[in-house]
Amino acid sequence: MSTVEIHGRHATFGGETLFCSHSSDACGGTMRFSLFLPPGACDAPVFYWLSGLTCTEENFMAKAGAQRRAAELGLAIVAPDTSPRDTGVPGENRDWDLGSGAGFYVDATQAPWSGRYRMETWVAEELPALLAAEFPLDMSRIGISGHSMGGHGAIVLSLRHGGRFRSVSAFSPICSPTDCPWGHKAFTAYLGEDREQWKFHDACELIARTEPVPELLVDQGLADPFLEEQLKPERLEAACAEREARLNLRRHEGYDHSYYFVSTFIADHLDWHARRLVR
Amino acid sequence: MSTVEIHGRHATFGGETLFCSHSSDACGGTMRFSLFLPPGACDAPVFYWLSGLTCTEENFMAKAGAQRRAAELGLAIVAPDTSPRDTGVPGENRDWDLGSGAGFYVDATQAPWSGRYRMETWVAEELPALLAAEFPLDMSRIGISGHSMGGHGAIVLSLRHGGRFRSVSAFSPICSPTDCPWGHKAFTAYLGEDREQWKFHDACELIARTEPVPELLVDQGLADPFLEEQLKPERLEAACAEREARLNLRRHEGYDHSYYFVSTFIADHLDWHARRLVR
Repeated sequence: MSTVEIHGRHATFGGETLFCSHSSDACGGTMRFSLFLPPGACDAPVFYWLSGLTCTEENFMAKAGAQRRAAELGLAIVAPDTSPRDTGVPGENRDWDLGSGAGFYVDATQAPWSGRYRMETWVAEELPALLAAEFPLDMSRIGISGHSMGGHGAIVLSLRHGGRFRSVSAFSPICSPTDCPWGHKAFTAYLGEDREQWKFHDACELIARTEPVPELLVDQGLADPFLEEQLKPERLEAACAEREARLNLRRHEGYDHSYYFVSTFIADHLDWHARRLVR
Repeated sequence: MSTVEIHGRHATFGGETLFCSHSSDACGGTMRFSLFLPPGACDAPVFYWLSGLTCTEENFMAKAGAQRRAAELGLAIVAPDTSPRDTGVPGENRDWDLGSGAGFYVDATQAPWSGRYRMETWVAEELPALLAAEFPLDMSRIGISGHSMGGHGAIVLSLRHGGRFRSVSAFSPICSPTDCPWGHKAFTAYLGEDREQWKFHDACELIARTEPVPELLVDQGLADPFLEEQLKPERLEAACAEREARLNLRRHEGYDHSYYFVSTFIADHLDWHARRLVR
């Protein structure tokens, strides 16, 4: 395992916001992430944030205003990039919703993506091990959250890696990628034509077949332009009701899909995770 | 006077973040600004934010996390763009520290800038009148602040327009543009070779010749790479001491010139202005 390169560090609310990269075995090349260390971090629990389409490791750290409350709670924040970059895969930069900035947190099984686009293994396995080795973090206490594509990623990874993540929440998640255009396009490219395989990476399908289902906090804006065609929180609601799983789905009049929405409610999510992570 | 066009609106902390433009008489063309209206705004006092070099009207709204505290305090926020755009002035986009994104909050007197680069009149006169006419704001209660070039702008405009701004603060201001490379370059281009004219747009020079000098709150990071060559807070300190003016200059170990620094201390500034603006 390689060591971490730190490209930028910014004092923030008494702690530090770091921009980092390392050479990833899972993804076969350089991967980037950002990290907030709260003041006096020592075995700090971790709030893991998965960003949405087109984002990098910078968006959440620059726009969500999360460090303020995380510093108060003693929570570290880890925000991985949303895909490998500059892999040489043909067409990786052609579409904003496939390839660069659109890894969907799955391990691709299909050429030409399968050699490099192994986001699930990187995010759920390689990165936690790297962080545990290199930073004053307690990687046995991770909560996971994310936005849009990253909300899908947070819920799906928490269900597929039950031992890894102690708490899970999401903003505006793609609740059922097997049933929306963004998901169809990405899963066809990364996972192939066999839709049975897709079900293992769909929050609603996984909720139907996973035990136990963790309690979920989900915020969704009602002025979100992607709500009906892409996000479909009613499908998540139905899946949780079917399993009698606890879902705290909050619908917010007037709020859209932007980081203005995320920043408004991020402190609630940090508090929610801290109650499950902080000793 | 033209009316305002609203290009984007985002629910934020119970209020709204708006992105606007209007046809400016002062600048002879379209000018852009952003506006945060706190929940239930009605004759709200205004926190005016002037951004630094390269910024637009978006940076502060997206990165400072100011809306959270402003919503609690009932403060509106106005963030003007840092220059006219697409004016056709030759070379306006050539340098990052002159022309587009670098208006320095002065009215240019020199060709080719003087026709369009009239930022002082726009920010201090035309925009307040427009806002008073079009939004539920009390433009008799404005506090002004800013960052770097905008910190210079906030202090200088508060001194040159004493009746306009009731309170003033700054982050990492260019304290004496007559005595630093950024200032020399901008003032030579906008105001000409006669350095006597420059003094009317230099915070330290104005403090020596203005009565009364308002109380100042200034935050400065000690890991700021521009501290010694461009910002020179010791010059502001000396000018205020000479006049026995109240300067609350806070130096912060480890903090740099970024919005991670601004976001850390912005709530202190909002509180400071609210004590002087909110009834």
